[in-house]
Amino acid sequence: MSSVVSADQVSPSRLRKFFAPTSVALVGATDKSRWSTSTFGNLKNFDGPVYLINPRGIDVHGTPSYKSVLDVEGEIDLAYLMLPVPAVMPVLAELAQKGTKNIVLLTAGYGEMGEEGKVREQELLDFCLANDMTLLGPNGNGYINAADGRTPYGLAITPPLVTGNVGFITQSGGLASAILAQAQARNVGISLLCAMGNETMVNNVDVLRYLVDEDDNTHVIAMFIESIRNPEEFLAIADRALAKGKPIVVLKVGRSEAGARVAKAHTGSLVGDDAVVDAAFKQHGVIRVNSLEDLCMTAGLLASLGGKPLPGRRVGFVTASGGACEIISDRSADEGLEIPDFEPETIKKIEAVVPDFASVQNPLDVTGYILVSPTLSRDCIQAAVDDPNIDFVVYSTDLPKTSPPDPEPVFAQFTATAQLLRTMSKPVIPLGSTLLDVTDFARQVQQRSDFPYVLGGIDHGITALGRALQWSEAYRARQVRGAGEAPAGHVGEALDVEGFAASRGITGRTTWAEHHAAAFLAQHGVPMVPQEVVADADAAVAAANRVGYPVVVKLAADDIEHKSDIGGVKLNLTSDADVREAFDAVVAAGHKAGGEVVGALVQPMRGAGLELLAGIVTDPAWGHVLAVGFGGVWVEVLRDTSLRVLPVERDEVLAALKSLRGAKLFEGYRGAEAADLDAVADAVHAIAKIAQGLGDKLESLEINPLLVRGGNVEALDALITWKS
Amino acid sequence: MSSVVSADQVSPSRLRKFFAPTSVALVGATDKSRWSTSTFGNLKNFDGPVYLINPRGIDVHGTPSYKSVLDVEGEIDLAYLMLPVPAVMPVLAELAQKGTKNIVLLTAGYGEMGEEGKVREQELLDFCLANDMTLLGPNGNGYINAADGRTPYGLAITPPLVTGNVGFITQSGGLASAILAQAQARNVGISLLCAMGNETMVNNVDVLRYLVDEDDNTHVIAMFIESIRNPEEFLAIADRALAKGKPIVVLKVGRSEAGARVAKAHTGSLVGDDAVVDAAFKQHGVIRVNSLEDLCMTAGLLASLGGKPLPGRRVGFVTASGGACEIISDRSADEGLEIPDFEPETIKKIEAVVPDFASVQNPLDVTGYILVSPTLSRDCIQAAVDDPNIDFVVYSTDLPKTSPPDPEPVFAQFTATAQLLRTMSKPVIPLGSTLLDVTDFARQVQQRSDFPYVLGGIDHGITALGRALQWSEAYRARQVRGAGEAPAGHVGEALDVEGFAASRGITGRTTWAEHHAAAFLAQHGVPMVPQEVVADADAAVAAANRVGYPVVVKLAADDIEHKSDIGGVKLNLTSDADVREAFDAVVAAGHKAGGEVVGALVQPMRGAGLELLAGIVTDPAWGHVLAVGFGGVWVEVLRDTSLRVLPVERDEVLAALKSLRGAKLFEGYRGAEAADLDAVADAVHAIAKIAQGLGDKLESLEINPLLVRGGNVEALDALITWKS
Repeated sequence: MSSVVSADQVSPSRLRKFFAPTSVALVGATDKSRWSTSTFGNLKNFDGPVYLINPRGIDVHGTPSYKSVLDVEGEIDLAYLMLPVPAVMPVLAELAQKGTKNIVLLTAGYGEMGEEGKVREQELLDFCLANDMTLLGPNGNGYINAADGRTPYGLAITPPLVTGNVGFITQSGGLASAILAQAQARNVGISLLCAMGNETMVNNVDVLRYLVDEDDNTHVIAMFIESIRNPEEFLAIADRALAKGKPIVVLKVGRSEAGARVAKAHTGSLVGDDAVVDAAFKQHGVIRVNSLEDLCMTAGLLASLGGKPLPGRRVGFVTASGGACEIISDRSADEGLEIPDFEPETIKKIEAVVPDFASVQNPLDVTGYILVSPTLSRDCIQAAVDDPNIDFVVYSTDLPKTSPPDPEPVFAQFTATAQLLRTMSKPVIPLGSTLLDVTDFARQVQQRSDFPYVLGGIDHGITALGRALQWSEAYRARQVRGAGEAPAGHVGEALDVEGFAASRGITGRTTWAEHHAAAFLAQHGVPMVPQEVVADADAAVAAANRVGYPVVVKLAADDIEHKSDIGGVKLNLTSDADVREAFDAVVAAGHKAGGEVVGALVQPMRGAGLELLAGIVTDPAWGHVLAVGFGGVWVEVLRDTSLRVLPVERDEVLAALKSLRGAKLFEGYRGAEAADLDAVADAVHAIAKIAQGLGDKLESLEINPLLVRGGNVEALDALITWKS
Repeated sequence: MSSVVSADQVSPSRLRKFFAPTSVALVGATDKSRWSTSTFGNLKNFDGPVYLINPRGIDVHGTPSYKSVLDVEGEIDLAYLMLPVPAVMPVLAELAQKGTKNIVLLTAGYGEMGEEGKVREQELLDFCLANDMTLLGPNGNGYINAADGRTPYGLAITPPLVTGNVGFITQSGGLASAILAQAQARNVGISLLCAMGNETMVNNVDVLRYLVDEDDNTHVIAMFIESIRNPEEFLAIADRALAKGKPIVVLKVGRSEAGARVAKAHTGSLVGDDAVVDAAFKQHGVIRVNSLEDLCMTAGLLASLGGKPLPGRRVGFVTASGGACEIISDRSADEGLEIPDFEPETIKKIEAVVPDFASVQNPLDVTGYILVSPTLSRDCIQAAVDDPNIDFVVYSTDLPKTSPPDPEPVFAQFTATAQLLRTMSKPVIPLGSTLLDVTDFARQVQQRSDFPYVLGGIDHGITALGRALQWSEAYRARQVRGAGEAPAGHVGEALDVEGFAASRGITGRTTWAEHHAAAFLAQHGVPMVPQEVVADADAAVAAANRVGYPVVVKLAADDIEHKSDIGGVKLNLTSDADVREAFDAVVAAGHKAGGEVVGALVQPMRGAGLELLAGIVTDPAWGHVLAVGFGGVWVEVLRDTSLRVLPVERDEVLAALKSLRGAKLFEGYRGAEAADLDAVADAVHAIAKIAQGLGDKLESLEINPLLVRGGNVEALDALITWKS
């Protein structure tokens, strides 16, 4: 997709009509086009009229055609346009005359084609808006409304089209068919699949809103995302989806620098810093995956859980292979699944049924005797379910690929197992060995026996379980916070910047240096180190004696941001004489640099401690972002910084601190006092609340360092930059 | 597998006979056992006689049986035993009498069952050794010699059994069938698949040796490994395989702590530290993967390359979807594939054939017009191949799943493409969109058209490419080193420890404290900081004046390892008086700690620099391991240590240094002088060479810190521990 224009949001009720047309016209239908052949073929089972429009009026696809949409006697509810660019606007004019409101435009050659194309795209949008038309595309394949059997979609749909409760939204038309094939191979049922194209009018956030708020057929949304045009709205919808128990699973490209560059080239829109995207998703319960396989499987698993969260991370595994147990252990460690020991009681129950050469532990290998004993697996699953240390059970099973001469015993066996699983008091999830297609026979087995969703192999299956747990935890946290509260909309009280500036005589500054910034932040709850602004050396000495030796003397100048670079900071001063000398030196340095020197700041010198860096930056797509990390090498060498988009709650700030790679440093490294994480979180949250209160005025805010010595948390320097 | 016993290595020539039996007896055959049914079914196409042995002599599987192996008139080349434990030894005795040399033992209940089982397993081995029998198992499913159609294998083989050049070795019997199914679904042809079982006699290293040295049908080896009984031999074979161009791909479990625990419980043998395994594999060109899917696909890709390395990391991607380009970019960044810009000339050629709305870049989206223009993709591939910045080309294509009514055009199209690809001057590798089974029709298409191996989807496909590049680079480095040299066998000159100890009067010590260790290391090329051992305060002062102030005074005591813990180190002394006081203090501290005090060490005090930690540790499975990392938080908080098993070449030491997460620190962090990496590598390599020279005597060796200031590299402290 690639757009330069924007439309107001397209409402769910409008999209409900758009996705349920009563009649369809294929405009530009021709036997020579594979798109035309495919779209016509896809509509074979559509229960309304399908009109073919061909300027020559000849038979197309063995069916008579109309020369013009105006020749069609009945109503055209939706028009699917496969036309050369020059033909598009004239046909749209005819469709407007005809009263058609719903347009899918397959044609490419718009915003993705440079300036000329952008002009065409604007013209297109203006026309559709003026004529109350809903437009999907251009440069998009259309959609598949599987639930209702309405499939104006330009690429061949290989049967069977498996219907179900996952709604797919993809910004890549080319990948739509890959997603379709993968969903089919995983036996993931589709409610709607929508290929966005250039998003000239309808964009992915609109379709997401429709699926979350309006479409009861959709229980899980799976998205392929290149960029999000309206991040704030996206997050607000994500919050509603989380409250409702409709998981959103996203494959968002641009994780790598190269990927972001390619995505930007294809979309032409800002994609934002990927680390920010990641943070925003995590905060709002949007689940991120890295492959189309994981997209389909995670969505399939979540759909099979029916909007219910998994009860916890403690899994009991029942397999028939020691090797599988070992791979499961490794992959579970990767994905944060816990595999606790079984209770002695559980072990006793399992030992009673497995052969005596089996080693009874979690993950459990019931051994190859599974081939001999039909009840072995079931008894072990029951024992694991009954174990109080276990939240849910995963057991190894593979769906059959091909039918034996008599399939009835297979159906009977799977039916019996399915019935048994339904009686279990905890979720029991089947897991295949490796990723293999669910064949037509396997699908038949699953349908006939009402067998639950089978995770396709250990590798992707454990990933899907890890993602489902992420969602489950976000969902439960959301339930605790309460359904009434919408965090994305919550903003702190507005702060009176103008009053503060006026009181200090600050005018026309886009940057506030430390002596202003610190005072402002202290006033709003950030624990700043004590400081006094002094205008001469005598005052500096007096201040030093008040704050207590040793002290720091820093240049106070309205227009100098990086004092230390010009020799404007003198540390560890221990006598009046030193202070006097330092005052003169920093002021001289300020004058030499041509600064508007106010005087100097005097602060107590602090001893060694843990140095943090905390601040607010503005992401071009996602707005204010809180960044927090350790100072020094941690930032520069390791890039160990944790991000959260604003607004942010205190518990999220705490989570951000704990997620730092160097978080062990908080525990008190090499005899240092352990940091009071609550005090650190309070200080950092105060910064976030200030940014929320400042809103759009703020460009960036930087505290460097935020010094932590046990429970003592103090900001030693600060800088605020305003949007100009 | 789980073994307590050990056998001499089983030679390739013996295994050659073992894997090519001329006649087979299934002992314990019965209609009631699924193993029996499967094994008999698998041997349907075996061209020698198959004898069924059942104690009742009844018809089994519709075939007459013999009551005893002794009743069989002809020779029994291989016996496949499916018997209860108590029946095994009597039958073996009969087989010995009969002259049968090759035994597959399916039966479980040996080493994996505790002490009693271990005794049984030893008895089994002793018997087989005494009777010149080759034993695979117990507790193993047997093997599939696909190349020769000999398949004494206990689980059903779902046809087709795809033959080819990948040899699979698995220590998990349960996973053997999963591997078989996955290989089939990926259309990876098998030469031999061997399920090891308990490895009482034949172990995975034996089979690896056979496949590398003896089996020309096998071009790539794929292994599922729980543990390696003979690491040194494994690495020696790996070196031969690398020299020969036979890649070894390994899924080794035990990456996580939990996984290692589970693997150890299942195998009962030492698995070694996983980080050491990882290092050993990397050093010897063994390619590691994390899933069965990646195992099959990486092996399949490498087999399709026919032992030839990929020319380089610079890939040209030709796809038909912008979305695919973006996922490819992200995944390529993960796996270290480079995607350089196309040359202007290339861009011109591509622009001439793609529609004008296409954006021409690498990775390339040729757009949906691929549906319209049959030559579009080919022209773009050709242009990419001709680009001098590109080492090889990957292009998107999916094999068809089902046959159209007339499959001939499909065959023709794939045949034409395959022919075209063969004319290309660089490798061109097809890549599917997602992981989908290669269906029977797809396999037919591939066979009929002689179409190259198709990577199954972007996610696993890019992983396979990344792994193939790792192998390619290891292979090329091996070619440069020369085929004659075998690094795994190369050990440094033996060092005279005894003479050194005698000259210093050291007797019966398992640990050498700094004053001895430093002298020994300095003598063998490690750059130690200058130091003098002094016996009294006057000598300390004299020494301090010789080495120059400021100085460090440290306790010298033969039996105190951690001097600083007991106050035995005084830093930054600047005067004779300080030195005198320090000498008395450290000696007093030594006496207080009850040490055998020799006196003190005097060293110059060094300024700040980059502190490294370098040393040798002994892994229970892999022997001496070189560990190097940054000191302080880097080790304790980040575990940023790089490992190499010994012996190690200097270039590997350099690579180890560069692979540290904090490697940017070498560039000169915050104004510090950039480190002379060559000097650092020399110092660290000197340590490795000493360890190689010391061989089994050495338990561990620790240099902490190794101080780096630009080109100045000095060890400031050292400790050596000997095997007791």
